[in-house]
Order: sequence, then C-alpha cells, then structure tokens
Amino acid sequence: MWNEHRHEKQDPRVAAIYPRGIHEAIAEPLRALDGIEACTATLDEEEHGLTQAALDTTGVLIWWGHMAHGEVRDDIVARVKKRVLEGMGLIVLHSAHYSKIFKALMGTTCSLKWREASDKERLWTVNPGHPISAGLPEHFELPMEEMYGEPFGIPEPDELVFISWFTGGEVFRSGAAWRRGNGRVFYFRPGHETYPSYHDKNVRRVLANAVRWARPTVRIADVCPNVGPLEPLPPDPDAQSRSHIGHR
Amino acid sequence: MWNEHRHEKQDPRVAAIYPRGIHEAIAEPLRALDGIEACTATLDEEEHGLTQAALDTTGVLIWWGHMAHGEVRDDIVARVKKRVLEGMGLIVLHSAHYSKIFKALMGTTCSLKWREASDKERLWTVNPGHPISAGLPEHFELPMEEMYGEPFGIPEPDELVFISWFTGGEVFRSGAAWRRGNGRVFYFRPGHETYPSYHDKNVRRVLANAVRWARPTVRIADVCPNVGPLEPLPPDPDAQSRSHIGHR
Amino acid sequence: MWNEHRHEKQDPRVAAIYPRGIHEAIAEPLRALDGIEACTATLDEEEHGLTQAALDTTGVLIWWGHMAHGEVRDDIVARVKKRVLEGMGLIVLHSAHYSKIFKALMGTTCSLKWREASDKERLWTVNPGHPISAGLPEHFELPMEEMYGEPFGIPEPDELVFISWFTGGEVFRSGAAWRRGNGRVFYFRPGHETYPSYHDKNVRRVLANAVRWARPTVRIADVCPNVGPLEPLPPDPDAQSRSHIGHR
Amino acid sequence: MWNEHRHEKQDPRVAAIYPRGIHEAIAEPLRALDGIEACTATLDEEEHGLTQAALDTTGVLIWWGHMAHGEVRDDIVARVKKRVLEGMGLIVLHSAHYSKIFKALMGTTCSLKWREASDKERLWTVNPGHPISAGLPEHFELPMEEMYGEPFGIPEPDELVFISWFTGGEVFRSGAAWRRGNGRVFYFRPGHETYPSYHDKNVRRVLANAVRWARPTVRIADVCPNVGPLEPLPPDPDAQSRSHIGHR
Repeated sequence: MWNEHRHEKQDPRVAAIYPRGIHEAIAEPLRALDGIEACTATLDEEEHGLTQAALDTTGVLIWWGHMAHGEVRDDIVARVKKRVLEGMGLIVLHSAHYSKIFKALMGTTCSLKWREASDKERLWTVNPGHPISAGLPEHFELPMEEMYGEPFGIPEPDELVFISWFTGGEVFRSGAAWRRGNGRVFYFRPGHETYPSYHDKNVRRVLANAVRWARPTVRIADVCPNVGPLEPLPPDPDAQSRSHIGHR
Repeated sequence: MWNEHRHEKQDPRVAAIYPRGIHEAIAEPLRALDGIEACTATLDEEEHGLTQAALDTTGVLIWWGHMAHGEVRDDIVARVKKRVLEGMGLIVLHSAHYSKIFKALMGTTCSLKWREASDKERLWTVNPGHPISAGLPEHFELPMEEMYGEPFGIPEPDELVFISWFTGGEVFRSGAAWRRGNGRVFYFRPGHETYPSYHDKNVRRVLANAVRWARPTVRIADVCPNVGPLEPLPPDPDAQSRSHIGHR
Repeated sequence: MWNEHRHEKQDPRVAAIYPRGIHEAIAEPLRALDGIEACTATLDEEEHGLTQAALDTTGVLIWWGHMAHGEVRDDIVARVKKRVLEGMGLIVLHSAHYSKIFKALMGTTCSLKWREASDKERLWTVNPGHPISAGLPEHFELPMEEMYGEPFGIPEPDELVFISWFTGGEVFRSGAAWRRGNGRVFYFRPGHETYPSYHDKNVRRVLANAVRWARPTVRIADVCPNVGPLEPLPPDPDAQSRSHIGHR
Repeated sequence: MWNEHRHEKQDPRVAAIYPRGIHEAIAEPLRALDGIEACTATLDEEEHGLTQAALDTTGVLIWWGHMAHGEVRDDIVARVKKRVLEGMGLIVLHSAHYSKIFKALMGTTCSLKWREASDKERLWTVNPGHPISAGLPEHFELPMEEMYGEPFGIPEPDELVFISWFTGGEVFRSGAAWRRGNGRVFYFRPGHETYPSYHDKNVRRVLANAVRWARPTVRIADVCPNVGPLEPLPPDPDAQSRSHIGHR
C-alpha cells in the first residue's frame, strides 16, 4: 500500500480522519484477511519505499497520491511500470488518476471534471458477476465525497465494474479494470482525503476483492527475441546480406 | 506520412525498392484517392517535420520508423501524443511497434518475436465487416517478409482486424485498432524495409481504408475543470474550509 | 425505421405526441439529411414490413417496440438477425432492449430497472471522439423520461458512448455499441412513448450519427466451408478413413 | 463435463482413443485436482443429464458436442443459458462452436473454415498473464488435429488467450473468453474426436485453468424490477394517468 502521505501531515482535518495515514487505514483491514500480507510505503521514504527488492516481493500495489504527483521520481515510476507489465497487480485510487504511473500505463490524459462540495456519491454495480463486486449490494452510498465527472480520459475499460451517481448531476466510471502486459490494473474512484471513505465497509470490501483479483499468475521479463523458425523455410536468396542484422 | 528515412539513404537494397523513400511509396497512392491529401515529413527535417502547425492541419498521421527511434525528440513525441488524444488518427507501421509514440499511447512493452529470413506472410481477415477490411480478400500473401511473432506486448485491441500466418510457424496480431482519447490508432504489421510490401496492392488498400477509418470527428483540448453542480446540493458544513482548494 | 405502432393507436396521450407514429417522427428528420433515404415498416404490415426484399435494400434498421414484442414472428426475427450478421446495421431504441432481435444478438437477459415517474434524464457523453457523439454537447437533458437503471444485462459494450443520470438516483449505460458478425449494433435508451423525446434535437442528432456509423461496408453470407490446404501437408496416414467426412 | 457421446459408440477409431468417452477423458484428470469435483452427463441420459437440480450444483459446465447438436432439446438449452447468465461458468470445446448453447450466448453464426487432414496445430499464448495460460509454455503443439480457420463468426472476445497456427496455412483464435451475464464463457478449439488431444498434458492444463477461472462468484436470478426513486422527485403532473402501468 503506497501513499503519498502529505495531506495527513499538513491538514488537521485529514489527520483527524486518518490519524495513522491513509496507507494504514487501507492496509490494516487487509491484514486481517486470510492469505493477504499488507505492507506500506510512502513518498518520503528512500526511493519512495519502492525499491526493486520491495517490488520483487509485491504481488499487488495500491496507490494513493494527490498533491505531490510531480515529486515521484521518473525512474521509480519506470520501475513500477516495468513490474506491472511483468505481472504485478496495481490498484489506483481516487486522485491517483493523475499519478505518473496511471497515466503511463493508460497512455491517455486521465482527465475528468471535479468539485469539492457536498455531493453524495452512489456507486452502482454494473457487473455483479465480477470478482470485485462479490458480496457487495447493488448500490452503496458515500454520504459526502468529492465529485468526479465524465468524460474521464481513459482507454475503454476491459471491464467496467462501477458507475457513480452524484447529487450535483454527474456520472463517473468509478470502477474500471484493464490488463496491461501481464499485470492487472483496477481504478477505483472514492477516497478524497477530507472524507472518511476508506473507513466505509463497502469500500473496504472492494479493495479486498480487488487485491485478490489483481494477484499475479506469472512474472515474465520483457524480451524482444530474434528467433529461429519452428518449421522449414524455403532457401533465402538474401541470406548473406542479412548476416548484419541484430541491431535492435 | 512520417518516415524515419534512414535505411533508404544507407542501404542500397532499400534504396532500390523505395527510391523516393518509404514515405513517398505510401503517400503517392493515397494522393490518387478522392478526399485524401497526403503530405510527408521525415526525421531529419526541422522538428522532424512535425511542427505544431503541421499537426494542426493533419487528420491522420502514418508513422514508419526503425533504426532511429531513439533520435525522435521527446518533446515532439509529447506533441504528437497530445494531438492524437485531441482527435488525430495515427497509423503505426511495422517496426514502429517500438516507436516512442506507439509505446507512449499503449503503455506496454510492445515487444514481440522477430526473424529476418525467408518467411512468407499470409494475412487473414478476422473481421471482414470492419471498414479497414473493405474490398480485401479473406486472406492475402506477402511472398517474403520479416517475421513478427506472438506474444505481442500490447493492450487487448478494441478491434482485431488481421492475424498473420508465417511459414516458420508463428502467428501475429497484424492489424489491431484502439481508441485513445478522441483519436483512433491502428497498428499494421507489414513493411520491412528490405521487401517491397508497400508496393503490394492489398497493403495499399489497407492503408487507404485505415486513413479513412481514422479520420477525426472532433478536436477537443485536454481540460480537467473544476465545475459547479447542475442540480441543487445540500448545505456544505465545510464550505469555508474548502475555500482553499484549486491546487490542481 | 421499424415501429411496433400500437401505443399510438391505443393511447391518446401517445397519439398527441406522435400523431403520425414514432416511426414517422424518427424517419422524417432523417429524410432531410444528405445521403440518407428513410422508409418505415410496422408490426401490423404483412411480414411486419420486413420482407426479405425490404431487408435486402436496407443498410441500417432502427427498431422501436414495447408492448407487443411477443407478437413479432420468430422466423422474421431470424431473418433480421441473419441480415445483421451479414452486415446490416441495427439501432435498438428504448424498450426494444427487450425485443427478440436485441436479445438474440446479445445472448443475455437485457434486463434492467425501470420507473415511469417524473425523472429528468441527463445523458453524458463518455466518448466524445466517437462518431455517434459528433456535434453533441458534453451532456444534454430530457426534462422527463422513463427511468432505466443498472445493472443492465448486456455483454460488455465494444464502445460505451453515453451514460445517463436520473433524478431519482440511478445511472444507465444509455448509448452502447457492439459489432455482431459483419453488422454494427447500437442501443440508445431514450424514447418512452409518453414523452416527446424523439422531437428533441440532440436525440435526433444521435440517431442521424448512429445511422451513418452503422452503415455496412460489406454483405457476406454465412458459410462454414470445408477447405483444402494452402500449404503442403505431410502424408495423412488416415486419409482413407477420412473419406466419409462432410457431415456438417 | 457434458459430452454428446455418440462418436465413441459408433466409430471404433474414436472408441480406441477414448474408451470411456471423451467426458471421462476430461473429467478424470480434473478429479485429481484440489478443490475440483468433476461429474459427467451425456446426451442420451434423461434430460441430457442436465436437470435443474444438476445445474443448481454445477459451478462450471464443460461442453463437447458435434454430430448431434440438433438433438439437444431447446428447453434444456434455455435452462443452461439461464444458469450461465445467473453465474455458472461454461467451457465450450472444439466442434461445440456450433452447439445451440454457444450460438445462443454469442448471438452470432459461430461459423469457421475446417479441414480434417494431417495438419499440425501449434497454439500460441498471446496473453501469458491470463489465469488460463498459467504454467503453459509460450507455444505447444498437437501433432495432428482438425484444422479450424478464420474468419470465426464470434463477437470480439473480451480476452483472447490463444491463437493457433496450422500447417496448411490457416490461423484461428483458439482460446477466447467472454463474460455473459454473471457467468464466464471460454471457448477452446482443440479436441477432434479422432485425435487424442484430450490426453495431451498442455490441453489438460488449459482445461484445469479454465475451470478455475470460470468459477462463479455469485448466483443472481434475472429480474427486471419496477423500482421507486432513491432521491426525491419533482411532482409528477401525469401521476394519475401512470397508475395503469406495469404491463411488462
């Protein structure tokens, strides 16, 4: 569980809601579950806590960030991206729609509309048979949340799981899943720092389900190999002139 | 039509096949078509020929590159990507699977297997109703081509159009389409510089169809706006403390 | 433009809104457009107006039905389905989510939540670069409409274009596109018979765009052919015993 | 594991390969796996062995059929389809591409090219991170198999897992996955009755992986409910005239 961990230090309202940080609020209930071991890492740790050794033993990485996306080192983003493409799961939360890692994996703007006011959010399960919906009601509510509205600048999700309704009149694809390389990516909308959304039991259920869903089945390093044929080829008239190749 | 235009200058075999460059071999037949105006640009032109003014008047960009992907300036890649997300179509050819622009839009490795030998390639139309397949036979052959083999490190295509069979025993998703932002992206496999594939009538047909398919319907600049509600909200108990926001 | 055309005859409220039938309300503005010829057919015509000859000359079929889905003949549904799979476009409106033709093409329940009350519907364009969104605002409203709510029992759309917000608290994937065989299918939600939604300029725009988008590029009859090899095969030790085959 | 079980009784070549039937050849290795209980059912049993009680206790149904698709009762196909849409997994093998149940769930022709000769089939994993690929090599071969060739008349797969190469020059999407309702559907190509493909260790691995992947997380009965609003609505000027509704 990776957290930027800045709002909690700077804003007493946030500290009141998440006294041990958003990362602990999310990691703690996961630790209680069978078969899940949850560690945390934060921006201000060395290498943001995302050393190669840490990633090597991580099956699924959860990411929360907001005010300090720009401080995340590009080389570490590249490292995380490589690890996702090898097979690690990635769960991207709320304002991390604008994180470097999510934008790099999506290839799009990841922009949206937003409003910090008194909207209620109601999340509708549009895919009740998806593992991430397991055990959830048809809809659940967060009494106050930041609004995110469409259009959301993402690639067409491989699987759309939740759509949110907001009091102020907007809708949002608030649970969306993609495969990228050998890894699975899930974006989940709720979780503005000034609301207690990560204490909500349905939100916690989504996160637990998503962690299980995103678990890797493989780890495959990137290669782009020059290979010989598996079946006989006809004679190559240009064989000699091809002997130079291999410049990739 | 953007071309790296290096092989043609350095390798007499390539120059013999494409005496005016791959870009002209592709642009010329497009110019003969109703409703298409085709210009060219190459790596060694100023700003690689991809000035903002040029992109502003481009509906669909075709991209061929191979040996000099690393010389394409990052700021110009960002400019092209922004333009695709605003609505410009992009057609990525052959070894441009490893171009910076394709990798940035896909978010994945874009790696594959390869072999430069005497394989025949047979392309099968798996989606005969797709506009890019219009007027093509169920399959067509290129008597000799570089082999590209699976797994191909791309996101699940929105639409898969062609799959290639190779003599040496491999298969490849050789025509694949995605929407990214408001733009459409099509990857088409054939076109190694040492074979005359861009003189093939079926390949030309694919390119003409793809250009028509990828034409933009809009141009929309990226925004991530803070918006007011469209419906009445309940009173906000924290309205005052929210007055600081707007830090994005 | 196919219409069940029953409500208009039985309910004076509906007749007041659509005096010449829903079919004419939809067909008439399409006729005014370049390159579109719009005919109509209704349930009570012979063969529901959907003779083979009529389908042979139809590029895109629009379908509105509600109270009499069960009266549509199964053999005619099979004929329409075959024509869609050959390449004809199909636009399915509102309560035709439960039409035989839509359910047969989707393979799912096509069920949803519903309420006929005083909801406002606001449609959000989640895919502004899609041809069906061309010329539309980011959102548009219908001041009163029947509510349809998620979960909607459809396969994951190939492309999601619109999501609706309803006053009563629900959301709905109100514009969704699929390819089925060589044909394109678009479902569009608005259009309850007791509201004047087909007189709305944005709804009309969607329908005009959808007709253009769904136009066929081919017509391909279904075959499942026994074919000879394109490349030499090794000797077949069981060639004689295979001589019986061809039982499909 | 459902099997038509006719070829084995009528053709000594098939009986020699599958002396206890294709169903037992598939079920037996599944029984050896942790957490899987495998039963069988065949066409000539009462209700084809697919009673409601049997389906109620089935998590994943595997289907093999070929020469007797037409003898499968329509009411039982409807029962199986309903159960899939409620959440049961379905794995469709080889010639069952033309089974009633697969065609009903896909909504398309499910046609293909075919040849019963001496082709070798090589299956390439195009999605190595998919759970169905777990533990499989990048490609595996079946020394002799019936050829199936593109175009294959299916909806765009949600996830494409395998593509086959055939000696005779064709390709085929031989492992394809869809969600339909709350159930998951996987089509897997190999398994012509005159070849021992279901004794192949890689084929068995695919089937074991597919069973695990297709397991239901829910069972949800189909409903299309009339619901009240979750948020206050404005007054309905037509409330009285609406009191008649409920005709679905």
